[in-house]
Order: sequence, then structure tokens, then C-alpha cells
Amino acid sequence: MVLLFGAAGYVGRAIAGALREAGLDVAAPTRADLDLTSRDALSAWLGGIPKPEFAINAVGFTGRPNIDGTEVEKWHTLRANTVVPGVLAEVLGAAGIRWGHVSSGCIYHGSRPDGSGFIESDEPEFAVFDPRAGWYARTKWMAEKLLAGAPGVLIWRLRIPFDSHDNERNYLTKLMRYDRLLEVRNSISQLGEFAAAAVASMHERIPDGIYNATNPGSILTSEVAAALARHGICRKQFEYFRDGEEFLSAPGRVFRASCILDPSKLAACGIRMAEVHESLERTLREWKRA
Amino acid sequence: MVLLFGAAGYVGRAIAGALREAGLDVAAPTRADLDLTSRDALSAWLGGIPKPEFAINAVGFTGRPNIDGTEVEKWHTLRANTVVPGVLAEVLGAAGIRWGHVSSGCIYHGSRPDGSGFIESDEPEFAVFDPRAGWYARTKWMAEKLLAGAPGVLIWRLRIPFDSHDNERNYLTKLMRYDRLLEVRNSISQLGEFAAAAVASMHERIPDGIYNATNPGSILTSEVAAALARHGICRKQFEYFRDGEEFLSAPGRVFRASCILDPSKLAACGIRMAEVHESLERTLREWKRA
Repeated sequence: MVLLFGAAGYVGRAIAGALREAGLDVAAPTRADLDLTSRDALSAWLGGIPKPEFAINAVGFTGRPNIDGTEVEKWHTLRANTVVPGVLAEVLGAAGIRWGHVSSGCIYHGSRPDGSGFIESDEPEFAVFDPRAGWYARTKWMAEKLLAGAPGVLIWRLRIPFDSHDNERNYLTKLMRYDRLLEVRNSISQLGEFAAAAVASMHERIPDGIYNATNPGSILTSEVAAALARHGICRKQFEYFRDGEEFLSAPGRVFRASCILDPSKLAACGIRMAEVHESLERTLREWKRA
Repeated sequence: MVLLFGAAGYVGRAIAGALREAGLDVAAPTRADLDLTSRDALSAWLGGIPKPEFAINAVGFTGRPNIDGTEVEKWHTLRANTVVPGVLAEVLGAAGIRWGHVSSGCIYHGSRPDGSGFIESDEPEFAVFDPRAGWYARTKWMAEKLLAGAPGVLIWRLRIPFDSHDNERNYLTKLMRYDRLLEVRNSISQLGEFAAAAVASMHERIPDGIYNATNPGSILTSEVAAALARHGICRKQFEYFRDGEEFLSAPGRVFRASCILDPSKLAACGIRMAEVHESLERTLREWKRA
């Protein structure tokens, strides 16, 4: 049996699907069942169930309607993104339960000096000392620091999830709703592949630690827009912001990091995600409107 | 009746003394009575007592034996310094209870460009984007951000507390235990004066917001050492680190911010602390060995 926290969310639903597809029993307490910011509540709840094989934390808050919302709801953001993994580390660690945490690539900006993707041992300088880093990136970075070196913990770094179901949390849906886009290069994560990779890394018992879980390569905003048009999903003629500065001139808008991550550590464990353009093509072929 | 959280700590004991001196009843739940990281526990506990006039949060973790310890105990540090004030803001706010929070000047480094002290509206750049900022400064900064603009909340910024009782948390005791010192200029807080200022600002109902609560002026490490010698308290011939770089070369040592704060916003509310050299002289005249 696998415990799944945050199963009602966009990422959690995909992980629940991947676990069930792998034939595993899933116990997924809801927020009403269990306050995950409380060590006592989690300890008591765990005491009432058989010891799980593994636990997965898919709890997180990325803002409503977008990341700008995390600047307004700072306390909620900190609880979901930092306090919950801190409580899990303490309580699951004491109970000897292996677990995995969904982290984020948003703690990086850009690429390594030679243009290649960041690897797991690169210091996430953006979240640490870039004045443009917002509250969200800081809370995700803090969670990684809390879990660093903890035995029995896997950290999967997700980045801009997308899948074939029209949904307000899906990158493709979000992009289609805007009239003006910002041209940036990013590594992104096909959500189903991400979820399958998380489940596989649990099964394969890969070594503890951090793993970038993005599709290999990187993609420009305009390439995604062109693919949407080519598949007849969105024929909108997008305008583009002149640059990041113009994009940020709207009130309340927080700087967005864009970055390239290198997922070869995960691939070296035998867990591969498809090249990003291939994965996008397949996703668009399977596109289902809401 | 005034609620005091963290009454068993170095700062809390001084505040408890100042409250009692002002003739106020103090309710001071201990850590065994109440888990302040739990919203439910705090709500339930508050439901069982008469509504207090005011509450004061003196909970905080500054590391054992010193600030370097906060890098090792990250989770404990985050809970004490950020989660507790977050919980208090939520629960006391909902209950309509005014309260004050002990923050820290450690979120700044240096002085304003003209050499004067930082004022409350200056962005704490050190904690926000100086790569040298440690976990402690980040957790204190996050708490200030969580409380920013909350109605009915006072934030008092304490900085390097000292008093006339030999104690491992007292700056003067700490300094005497070292053989080598780092020469830096700082604003510092005489603890009894700080506690009296906190109580006075509660009584006077000064406007909500942040207040630097340090003794006016600034002082060099060597001036403090000379004063200790002059009073016959410590005749050690201190050596000095060549510079901050040499100081930091010891393993596990985190960068210490040093800074000048301007307490004139508090003074403008009629709450004055003594000039720093005067306050140190008086404290040393009253020195009591442990």
C-alpha cells in the first residue's frame, strides 16, 4: 500500500492514476481527514493504518489563478510547500517510511554557463539570492533544504506540467488563455510521464536524493504555440511581450524563472522520459477538450 | 491579562519581568502546555481562557551554542521562527487579539549608504538576496513578511541582546568566552530596556507595524571588550580575526551580518532607549556573575 498526500490536486491525480496502473493500493487522505501541517495529527493517523510501503507528497500551492497568487497568500503557500514536507520528514522519518516529494525546477533560472541544463548538485542560485525570486520559489527551496540528506527520501523536480486534458492547471490550457506570451526557453514535464517516473523510481528503489524529472531538452514558448496551431487546437495569433521587463510591468506580477534542467541522473537509473518535442507531439495528438 | 509565549527563553524571561513590573497579570503557557505550531491546539487553548488584552511572542530559536546551530537544525529553526508567528497571526487575528512579535535586526547588513542606520521601511536586502544570508536570517525575514500589514500586530526588532546577568545567551557573556573576536560595528539591544519598550508600546497603543528596538547609536566589538576590561569584568587580552574571511574559514561557520539600525520611529512614539555606550556602562556597573 502506498500513501498519497495531495491526491486531489493536478499532480496528485496523475500520480494516483500511475499508482493504480501499477496495480498498487493507494491510501489518499483528504485535507478534511488529516491536517498535514500538524505532526500530532499525522502521527495519530499513521498509528491507525497498516505501515505503508512508501508515501508520496503531492501537496503544493502554486497560486490562484497563477503564481502571482502565492505572493498574496504567503502563509498558505508556506504551509503547503514547506511546512507539510517538514512535518512529513519528521514523522515519516521517525516511522521509518520511505517517501518521495514533488519539488520544482523553479528554484533555478537560465542554464549552466555553457547553455546545458542544471544538474541536481548545482546550487539553485536563483532561489537563494536572486532578488527577483518570489515567495513560491523560496518556499520550494526551503523544503529541499529541510529534506537534504534525509535517509529514505526521494525528491522529484517537476517543471511546468502539461498533459492532454484541457485543465486550468495544464500549461497548454494556460498558454491558450493568454493573448500575449513571453518568449522563454524552458524544460517542462509531461505530467503522465512524470507520474510514471515517480512510481518507477519508488519501485526500482533508486538511491535517495534529488532527481530532475523533466522531459529531456528544452522548448521555446513559440514552439509550443506553433504546435498547438499545427494540431488545430488553438489558432490564436499570439502577440509577444517585447521582453521580460514589459511582461513584469503589470501590477502584482512576480518574475517567472525559466530554466533548463538536465534529467540524465534519473535516466541513468533506467527511468527515461521522452524528448520534449516528441512528448508534446504525442500529448497534442491525444488532446481532449474540457 | 497578557499572554506571553516563549516565557522560558532569554528574551521571554525579560519580557515577563517587565510585564509583572508594570503590574500586569501574565499567562505564560509552556511548550508542554501548548504546541504553538498547531493552529488547532492554539485555538482550543485560547477557547479555555478569558480573552487577553494583548499577546507577546518571544518564541525563537537562535541556535546552540550559537547561530551556526540553526544551519544544522533547520526544521526546528523554521518552526520556532516562522511557523509559530504564522500560526499566531492566523489564530490571534481571527480572535481579534492584538499582539507583538520579537523579530531581529539580523535581516540587514551594514548601514544605509550614508552610514546611518536602517529605518523600518528599508528593504532588508541582506536576508532577501545576499548569498551569505543564513537560514536564521531567512526564517526571521519570512516571519516579517507573513505579518506585514496584519492589523493589530507590532513587530519589535531586537539585535544582539545583552544585560547585567552572566548568561550563555547574553552578548557580553558570549564575547568573554571567545579568545578571538571579529571587529564589527553593530546596533545592539539592552534586554531590560527592550522588554520595557515592548511593554510600553503595548500600553501606549502605538500604531501597528515594525519598530527597530535597539539602543540608539552603534558600537564596535573592541569598544565592548574595552568596557569589560575597564569594569574589571574581563581582563582577557583578546586577539582579533584579520577580517571576516578569516573568521569564516572555520568549518560550519555561517556569515554573521552586522548592522546599524535607527530606532527613532519608536522614539517618536515616546519610547526611548538609552544611547548604546551609556546603556552598556550602566549594565556593566550592575554586572552579576553567574
